[in-house]
Amino acid sequence: MDIKEFFCNDRFATEAGVRLIEARPGYSKAEMALTPNHMNAGGTTQGGAIFTLADLALAAAANSCGKLALSLDASIHFFHPSKPGDTLTAEAKEKYIHKRTGYYQVEVRNQDGELIACFDTTVYRKDTSLPFSTDY
Amino acid sequence: MDIKEFFCNDRFATEAGVRLIEARPGYSKAEMALTPNHMNAGGTTQGGAIFTLADLALAAAANSCGKLALSLDASIHFFHPSKPGDTLTAEAKEKYIHKRTGYYQVEVRNQDGELIACFDTTVYRKDTSLPFSTDY
Amino acid sequence: MDIKEFFCNDRFATEAGVRLIEARPGYSKAEMALTPNHMNAGGTTQGGAIFTLADLALAAAANSCGKLALSLDASIHFFHPSKPGDTLTAEAKEKYIHKRTGYYQVEVRNQDGELIACFDTTVYRKDTSLPFSTDY
Amino acid sequence: MDIKEFFCNDRFATEAGVRLIEARPGYSKAEMALTPNHMNAGGTTQGGAIFTLADLALAAAANSCGKLALSLDASIHFFHPSKPGDTLTAEAKEKYIHKRTGYYQVEVRNQDGELIACFDTTVYRKDTSLPFSTDY
Repeated sequence: MDIKEFFCNDRFATEAGVRLIEARPGYSKAEMALTPNHMNAGGTTQGGAIFTLADLALAAAANSCGKLALSLDASIHFFHPSKPGDTLTAEAKEKYIHKRTGYYQVEVRNQDGELIACFDTTVYRKDTSLPFSTDY
Repeated sequence: MDIKEFFCNDRFATEAGVRLIEARPGYSKAEMALTPNHMNAGGTTQGGAIFTLADLALAAAANSCGKLALSLDASIHFFHPSKPGDTLTAEAKEKYIHKRTGYYQVEVRNQDGELIACFDTTVYRKDTSLPFSTDY
Repeated sequence: MDIKEFFCNDRFATEAGVRLIEARPGYSKAEMALTPNHMNAGGTTQGGAIFTLADLALAAAANSCGKLALSLDASIHFFHPSKPGDTLTAEAKEKYIHKRTGYYQVEVRNQDGELIACFDTTVYRKDTSLPFSTDY
Repeated sequence: MDIKEFFCNDRFATEAGVRLIEARPGYSKAEMALTPNHMNAGGTTQGGAIFTLADLALAAAANSCGKLALSLDASIHFFHPSKPGDTLTAEAKEKYIHKRTGYYQVEVRNQDGELIACFDTTVYRKDTSLPFSTDY
């Protein structure tokens, strides 16, 4: 099993239409095509939908080494609005890594490259091995 | 239309199984019963699912006065794991409010009262009126 | 040595006028009397001064068990302004604790009880023992 | 008066040894040479000292246009430790700007380029003019 197949098992993200495009140590890219099902009561994209996209990208980058990393906390800053028909891309990058903790930043952009949101998270790294190949 | 009907229009939260239980000025409570569809690839609840629950509660509390409030940013801290069969409840409280900005804290607990996550957010308050009754 | 003496060795906080008032497992209170030296170029209290007060309170609460806890990250939300002559009090409370991590919230208020800032932090708990008595 | 002179009036940052090196629209750089006075009770740099450095850099970048911007909230993530004798440099960059709000990221590095901390903040932009020249 490769890392993309593994993350297809993220049922909440998969149901939300999130798709992992690329993953390698300390980096990943995911995307989500927005439909009316991603909207909130105010008619713009629900924060939770954008968070889910960013969180899947973060998870792929942080777990890419094959060991389980769990989010301790995450922050998201919302900028530009988005709507059905837009395609959002999340790019996750490792900023710092210790033996037990790590810090990742994710940028979410639309199809025109406009910055939709910035997401960052601190993870706790466990010794548990994950069941996918780490040959990238 | 009352505030509960209005927030049923949050399609992403509604699809995720989030239900607004109670809302009044500066306060709200929402809940979500966890199923296998809320899980991530590691077999625990996806952060985005918990974020969506907390965000809907926040939105109800922050918009309860009938004027549109938009999240500028939000943070979530994850504690206790949760699994299919658990029911999560999010309780949102206003901590501070200015003319243009506000700050809200949300606590997410399971059916046994265990703290699953803490969420907080800064909102920007617009003059736009929302189409629901503010007679609570 | 007791915990108050230990935290007098926090030279940056001590120079800033921060004084630890009370500390016990999972709780602490600290205060700082504002002078013109705490102000920023805009004439209100520098965010770093309020952060330093909250951070000392957090450190006392998180280290009160006698083992070293290090902040991984911290967030602060600013509300009401403050000025020379005001006395700020920070009260820190433990919200959640695991074997290796913990989460704390701090509220900063002025002498009239008005909420000046909310601060929260995630700590990493090491095995290193601290040189003060834990008989409270 | 130029922007560097204006920020010398940040008495808390100036007392802490923070010095603004460079500022232009949406960007700034500041530095602080660490002494024993910046240390906490555990013998490493107090989080409030690093926050103060980052906050001054943020303030210069966010106010560089000559209008007052106030922090609504700020987050800081701590990585590598630092000690007396180190010189820390904070570089602030504007990531997004709206009419009323803005988002800035600051990276703090030591003299060897190692990443000490990441700081980010959301500001509220007022119409108040600041008393310095905006000819850069």
